[in-house]
Amino acid sequence: MAKKVAVIMGSDSDYGVMKAAVEKLRKLEIPHEVHIISAHRTPAAAEQFASKAKENGFGVIIAAAGKAAHLGGVLAAYTTLPVIGVPMKTSLMGGLDSLLSIVQMPKGVPVACVAVDGADNAAILAAQILAVEDAALASRLFDEKVKMQREVEEKDAKLQEEVM
Amino acid sequence: MAKKVAVIMGSDSDYGVMKAAVEKLRKLEIPHEVHIISAHRTPAAAEQFASKAKENGFGVIIAAAGKAAHLGGVLAAYTTLPVIGVPMKTSLMGGLDSLLSIVQMPKGVPVACVAVDGADNAAILAAQILAVEDAALASRLFDEKVKMQREVEEKDAKLQEEVM
Amino acid sequence: MAKKVAVIMGSDSDYGVMKAAVEKLRKLEIPHEVHIISAHRTPAAAEQFASKAKENGFGVIIAAAGKAAHLGGVLAAYTTLPVIGVPMKTSLMGGLDSLLSIVQMPKGVPVACVAVDGADNAAILAAQILAVEDAALASRLFDEKVKMQREVEEKDAKLQEEVM
Amino acid sequence: MAKKVAVIMGSDSDYGVMKAAVEKLRKLEIPHEVHIISAHRTPAAAEQFASKAKENGFGVIIAAAGKAAHLGGVLAAYTTLPVIGVPMKTSLMGGLDSLLSIVQMPKGVPVACVAVDGADNAAILAAQILAVEDAALASRLFDEKVKMQREVEEKDAKLQEEVM
Amino acid sequence: MAKKVAVIMGSDSDYGVMKAAVEKLRKLEIPHEVHIISAHRTPAAAEQFASKAKENGFGVIIAAAGKAAHLGGVLAAYTTLPVIGVPMKTSLMGGLDSLLSIVQMPKGVPVACVAVDGADNAAILAAQILAVEDAALASRLFDEKVKMQREVEEKDAKLQEEVM
Amino acid sequence: MAKKVAVIMGSDSDYGVMKAAVEKLRKLEIPHEVHIISAHRTPAAAEQFASKAKENGFGVIIAAAGKAAHLGGVLAAYTTLPVIGVPMKTSLMGGLDSLLSIVQMPKGVPVACVAVDGADNAAILAAQILAVEDAALASRLFDEKVKMQREVEEKDAKLQEEVM
Amino acid sequence: MAKKVAVIMGSDSDYGVMKAAVEKLRKLEIPHEVHIISAHRTPAAAEQFASKAKENGFGVIIAAAGKAAHLGGVLAAYTTLPVIGVPMKTSLMGGLDSLLSIVQMPKGVPVACVAVDGADNAAILAAQILAVEDAALASRLFDEKVKMQREVEEKDAKLQEEVM
Amino acid sequence: MAKKVAVIMGSDSDYGVMKAAVEKLRKLEIPHEVHIISAHRTPAAAEQFASKAKENGFGVIIAAAGKAAHLGGVLAAYTTLPVIGVPMKTSLMGGLDSLLSIVQMPKGVPVACVAVDGADNAAILAAQILAVEDAALASRLFDEKVKMQREVEEKDAKLQEEVM
Repeated sequence: MAKKVAVIMGSDSDYGVMKAAVEKLRKLEIPHEVHIISAHRTPAAAEQFASKAKENGFGVIIAAAGKAAHLGGVLAAYTTLPVIGVPMKTSLMGGLDSLLSIVQMPKGVPVACVAVDGADNAAILAAQILAVEDAALASRLFDEKVKMQREVEEKDAKLQEEVM
Repeated sequence: MAKKVAVIMGSDSDYGVMKAAVEKLRKLEIPHEVHIISAHRTPAAAEQFASKAKENGFGVIIAAAGKAAHLGGVLAAYTTLPVIGVPMKTSLMGGLDSLLSIVQMPKGVPVACVAVDGADNAAILAAQILAVEDAALASRLFDEKVKMQREVEEKDAKLQEEVM
Repeated sequence: MAKKVAVIMGSDSDYGVMKAAVEKLRKLEIPHEVHIISAHRTPAAAEQFASKAKENGFGVIIAAAGKAAHLGGVLAAYTTLPVIGVPMKTSLMGGLDSLLSIVQMPKGVPVACVAVDGADNAAILAAQILAVEDAALASRLFDEKVKMQREVEEKDAKLQEEVM
Repeated sequence: MAKKVAVIMGSDSDYGVMKAAVEKLRKLEIPHEVHIISAHRTPAAAEQFASKAKENGFGVIIAAAGKAAHLGGVLAAYTTLPVIGVPMKTSLMGGLDSLLSIVQMPKGVPVACVAVDGADNAAILAAQILAVEDAALASRLFDEKVKMQREVEEKDAKLQEEVM
Repeated sequence: MAKKVAVIMGSDSDYGVMKAAVEKLRKLEIPHEVHIISAHRTPAAAEQFASKAKENGFGVIIAAAGKAAHLGGVLAAYTTLPVIGVPMKTSLMGGLDSLLSIVQMPKGVPVACVAVDGADNAAILAAQILAVEDAALASRLFDEKVKMQREVEEKDAKLQEEVM
Repeated sequence: MAKKVAVIMGSDSDYGVMKAAVEKLRKLEIPHEVHIISAHRTPAAAEQFASKAKENGFGVIIAAAGKAAHLGGVLAAYTTLPVIGVPMKTSLMGGLDSLLSIVQMPKGVPVACVAVDGADNAAILAAQILAVEDAALASRLFDEKVKMQREVEEKDAKLQEEVM
Repeated sequence: MAKKVAVIMGSDSDYGVMKAAVEKLRKLEIPHEVHIISAHRTPAAAEQFASKAKENGFGVIIAAAGKAAHLGGVLAAYTTLPVIGVPMKTSLMGGLDSLLSIVQMPKGVPVACVAVDGADNAAILAAQILAVEDAALASRLFDEKVKMQREVEEKDAKLQEEVM
Repeated sequence: MAKKVAVIMGSDSDYGVMKAAVEKLRKLEIPHEVHIISAHRTPAAAEQFASKAKENGFGVIIAAAGKAAHLGGVLAAYTTLPVIGVPMKTSLMGGLDSLLSIVQMPKGVPVACVAVDGADNAAILAAQILAVEDAALASRLFDEKVKMQREVEEKDAKLQEEVM
């Protein structure tokens, strides 16, 4: 059975940004769950979710958090599944706090960090991970890549008309 | 009975810096324990330590960690005791990663952050916290403050001789 | 008698943010005072407040300031009470100036720094400090922690309905 | 047949750091190849490697580069395989240039960024990705995690003897 | 025949800023083309454009991109023409990510970086490059410089009236 | 005769901020002139102004500029009068570019840097410099300092009424 | 009688850098005093020094400090004399903490900031300030400027021989 | 006659780094001159050099400077020749001060910035600019590019032997 992707957010205020990840997963036909679990406010829930993620059918965990963004690291501490961290934009240097808190994980416990507010890319990365052994998904990803390419080409074509 | 201070380090490599905190606590006659507990490599130990810190006689927890320094936040998630975070110097902007990972805690779960590599100040802050209701300790702290002042005055006096 | 918490702001313009600290202290039933004292414009008032804070019944001082935020350090110079610094958001890298001016205190005189604009957490940290020897306050803090946890759980439950 | 991991470096000077990734992969019994391919000096080689990585039996690509570190992004442009980026430490803010050049990928083409000089974690992350559908590898990763935990516990035990 | 300048943007959303470059080139009577080509979404188009830019009559390439801004470096990899990079403003420290991704090119493959959102200056720099061997263009650039000087002088004169 | 203060701006767009400096000088009854002179667009005017500033009766020069803010340094190169630099806020890290371009002057040619957008303080600093040998001005500055102190005290008094 | 310059350091460890300022003042024949006074460890001494600096014959105060460098601001709070701040290099981003703590002074109380470790320039700036009304000193400063210019010209001449 | 390249350094201490640019120009058989001219210490020399650079046979100016690196901007103010800026590494964030002082030039006066300490790339960029209308030089540049490619390929080949 296809592995699920978990989209975990540290706060419900992150959902505005992370909705894009959920929609992308839906579009790529990847089974998923979305949860609000806080590393600091519901640490037991974080522990439990991560500890059982594998046996509960998850293949990848996406963790979105801001400021001192510990969520990804805390989940990664309790699982060997790949954990993708999405740093949320903040007012401190545009999210450098979130970014460094996620990406600078110490030796032994990696978190795969994407761009600040990179919800879309987190979903694509999760899909790429599952697609390593899922040819159908790999094919859907390839189609998306081609489509993306065409969109840029069309925009360029349209621009040529404008500037002429 | 006097409350203890816990000095928790994420890695044994932090001990070179954190020894200063231990020595300061000793000098101020504050009972303490020192432990290596990693938020990412021994998360269960972190949870257990923090959950039971209060009933085990601790009054303050000092947490030293570097890079994506989650230790303070993870301990604070499991206790209502004050947690002091000490960001370790790193090669990324001199420890800005550690600093932001500790200080930028989200609403509801504070960590009291001191300067990068500020082991000494972490111990003094812990002492100040315990001294709020411990007049004898407050008096020792005051004596240290006076002594520190005298040292500066003596250095100035010595400088006057040199520059003349 | 219960120790008071002082909330000192460098400017009246900080009150919009720091009101949250005052409200939190009120909610936790902690006696407190609020003052505008500037390290640079009313330095004598700063000196006097800090020098007498202990004998005037204060247990913790919260100092909020922005830019070259010296208020916390100036107050800490004149007292052995724990001083909590709250860096105010500014337009220079979102408050990195305030943050570094507060957190990077030199050896011997600590300031306990919380997040940029972290008024709420400053009040909680002050409460945690007073709760070390105040079981009733510790119990109120624990209740708040449980409540906070439930709010996250409820938000997650609500999200499950939305995404289904 | 087991998927291979590619370790690509932008310069042979990166090998001192990236050797740790190669050793980790060897230890985890993951088939791998190591190459020096520069996004800027051998762009055609980069294109070719990435375009054919999948059919050549690779499951994950690790790309290490420094400064304006385009290697990960350039490889990701030509494949749907997951690409892990390792920012090399530099003298400009300790590698913030490498880090931002890797992590801030635009929408549609993710690179999974690990810590600056995080060779070890890049290999573990690659293993975690392959382990999603490889139970034996997942088990080896779990064993490593347990071993890592024990090492911290042993260091703590040893520290207790020292400080007593 | 006069060499053309290429203005390449990584995304159509960059056109709002880069229009100023196009207008400047027009004003300086420099033949030019404008294209949307993405280093990550249409890498083959980037390769082809750069590889043939010289034989297609281009003398200078302007490449505008944001975040992990690889476009300039990717184009420079395939040509010996001078490539000017324009970092787009972003929410991460106002575009420091774009800036470092463009300016910190490794040895052997330079990109000439101008200011964040510096569309106007990119066009002037391109003109200066072509003017090295084009006396008429050099003369137009000189006229622009004189005109710019007069505008400042006029603004100063006007200010004198205001402040008196 | 009293020395004049020159307020030089690199662009007329800086006047919105620098007006505060002009008003402060007026309030302190200091003779002054305001000019728009650009280090890059009217370099000869900059040279001439600075070279003759002393013989033209100026005692201090205030130079306001943004981004690669060379104005202060260029003026300082041509005079031994004290030059005060005011970094203008920009979108790149809130003006860190302007700040570093002004404050980091190499050995031999200082510029006295004030805060980003610190127009008011630049005027006060200029006044303090002139007041070293002007007792009447020193007295006016002292009065301003006392007034400033009273304003803070009044705001605190008003706050006491509000919070009670 | 000639006004003195005060060189105040927050710590005796700053003397290695600040010696250059003392030597420059000596060379320029400016009377001066050197003191170690800490804003945090000897705040009363700081207050007293600044409050009486004017009547004690000082014209300018140079204040050197590192990390949360409050010394300049604390001295400026108690005097209307111009205060020059010298940020000491630190391991956190090379002294950005010291720099921002000094330069970002709030409205009303300026500190004239020079470059990180800019001891030499602090002395020159102090001299420039005193030279506003001291023609002989102005002349010595002018001579230094000419000498400095010649040194560069000689180095260029020497380089021409080398490269030929 | 072939246009010359000028390599201008703000200080003789920059020659250790900039020698690489001179050697590269020599290797590419490009006529050049090397000078020490300081924007701040010999401003008149800077003005004169830039004003006459064109009539003196220069086609491109390379300007290397550190800290508040105004040299490139000052030269660009007096010429319409393309000016390439090389930011020198410093102890403040590894040269971010030099970089921003060079790259963030205001509208109208561009400086083409290369990487921190990018002496080699500055020379290549200068060559690329001159090669726009010099087919022989373009051919030499192309040969260098091919050679550079081969070196990477050889290093990869050598690595294959090592890792086997």
